[in-house]
Amino acid sequence: MAEAKEHFVGVDLGGTKILAGVFTPQLKCLGKTKISTKPQRGPEAVVERIARCIEDAVDECDLDLKKVKGIGLGAPGAVDPESGKVIFAPNLAWEDLPLKKELEKQLDLPVFVENDGNICTLGVYEAELHSKPRDLVGVFLGTGIGGGLILNGRLHSGFNRTAGEIGHMIIEVGGPKCSCGNRGCFEAVAGRQAIFQKIQTAVKAGQKTILTEMLDDELTDMRSGDLRKAIRRGDKLVERIVEEAAEYTGIAVANLINLLNPDTIVLGGGIIDALEDEMMAIIVETAHDYALGGTSKGIEIIASKLGDDAGIVGSAVLARRETK
Amino acid sequence: MAEAKEHFVGVDLGGTKILAGVFTPQLKCLGKTKISTKPQRGPEAVVERIARCIEDAVDECDLDLKKVKGIGLGAPGAVDPESGKVIFAPNLAWEDLPLKKELEKQLDLPVFVENDGNICTLGVYEAELHSKPRDLVGVFLGTGIGGGLILNGRLHSGFNRTAGEIGHMIIEVGGPKCSCGNRGCFEAVAGRQAIFQKIQTAVKAGQKTILTEMLDDELTDMRSGDLRKAIRRGDKLVERIVEEAAEYTGIAVANLINLLNPDTIVLGGGIIDALEDEMMAIIVETAHDYALGGTSKGIEIIASKLGDDAGIVGSAVLARRETK
Repeated sequence: MAEAKEHFVGVDLGGTKILAGVFTPQLKCLGKTKISTKPQRGPEAVVERIARCIEDAVDECDLDLKKVKGIGLGAPGAVDPESGKVIFAPNLAWEDLPLKKELEKQLDLPVFVENDGNICTLGVYEAELHSKPRDLVGVFLGTGIGGGLILNGRLHSGFNRTAGEIGHMIIEVGGPKCSCGNRGCFEAVAGRQAIFQKIQTAVKAGQKTILTEMLDDELTDMRSGDLRKAIRRGDKLVERIVEEAAEYTGIAVANLINLLNPDTIVLGGGIIDALEDEMMAIIVETAHDYALGGTSKGIEIIASKLGDDAGIVGSAVLARRETK
Repeated sequence: MAEAKEHFVGVDLGGTKILAGVFTPQLKCLGKTKISTKPQRGPEAVVERIARCIEDAVDECDLDLKKVKGIGLGAPGAVDPESGKVIFAPNLAWEDLPLKKELEKQLDLPVFVENDGNICTLGVYEAELHSKPRDLVGVFLGTGIGGGLILNGRLHSGFNRTAGEIGHMIIEVGGPKCSCGNRGCFEAVAGRQAIFQKIQTAVKAGQKTILTEMLDDELTDMRSGDLRKAIRRGDKLVERIVEEAAEYTGIAVANLINLLNPDTIVLGGGIIDALEDEMMAIIVETAHDYALGGTSKGIEIIASKLGDDAGIVGSAVLARRETK
């Protein structure tokens, strides 16, 4: 007797790596696989790598694709969920790529595509918060800063499908240069890149940090976890720079409260995963401080527990939603 | 034969004045009345003044209250539309005032209350844009800066009913002090108060402007219209300060595009009414410039034509919606 098609695969497509996870209908993760993206090889090669990553993950769980009901995928850029096209994805150098169609052809399974910030927010919303908030904003601090909006229980992606670009909200006119070309974006003052650069600049200016002992003088291969270790070993420089990033994040959260007044704001991403204890209390306090009187009362500002899995969990949630 | 109850009254309750207008079912304004608010006399007195303003407006149009189907009102603060309570309104020093109930008792007619930024946005949405946008953000530059959000065709007021506080979005950390106590709010760099203060500071520092000839050395009773006149007479100082406010407004609009990606952003309020020709082109250009690549394509950034009537029109729209 053939078993039912009941599993879901969630895929997190990034500029450097592809992560695929296999999930039960109850969103229990049975296993996952990671490979590099290699966007320089072109879209066709990346689509093949995605398919391979999915097949490998399913195989790792001793299943085969016949047991899979649907595949969800979060992509870094503007996505039209209806057509499944990636409209543009600067990190992959993609434009107007019919990702859903291509993957469905390769895998012979239904595929659903969304923006990665939306996907992570959806994952937190359904798998972690059990769809309780009416309005949820997700803020994910990694190399850059991404985000997503759930309004009235539904993903809000807007006119050009690019809503939730929280990282490029300008909070300091004339501030530090951002990768997008503007100055003073939230990402340019609180993203991992910004934090690392501040530390490197301080080291070059002769300031002391134990990071140079832990790594080397150029701070090669610095990771978010190194910052946590340095702070716990009493490193004042790293502590101050991380606190500053937390304050900026609190101000960005206050802006979100003033503007959208969601019930819940969830923070996640590599920086928060590594530095939750160091940053969250400052973020929460600063947000309530800067939000207009009376606007932040009762609003929850929390750290996600999904960690690096937010993308694959969210993608599995999307696949489950869409195949219901 | 008694005529049908078919008219609507729209009320714009501000910290200094109350404006009431009488509207046909097609939202044609038949007449309006304005009186001062006098909040220092206490809530009970203000409620009576609102009722009187409504009665006067109806009388001006040779109608009586029996011809009125419903009354809408926009209040400056957080409002719970369901209970019709004003939760808090700092400009009026009100807290938890059952405005709907009080007015219904006095006028024996259904009353519907909303936040004023929401109301103005609703007025533009239905009376000016004929409910065409799916998502609309209203930005109103007056003494302060207010706003409202229509998402998926519905007013979005959020958890504490305070969404749309666009004026207190921080866009310049460490910038000029705002009336709310923070620094660098959008209102503190582009509201009327901010523009006037910059001009006054420049005059005190010895810079020349024909405003001192038009008014006096202290620039007493300066109005937005004076700025327009000065610019048209070639005043470089005023021109520069107004252009700066327009640039900040463009940056705030870019933030809204990055975050919410609405189809349409409408600007209004006294500053825009007086300085549309001087500011709008700069606002639109700056917004597209600062919005993340690909996110602003096709998004309309327009000036409302409703002018000072946005509040009463929006309130009439609310009354018409709610009595359908």
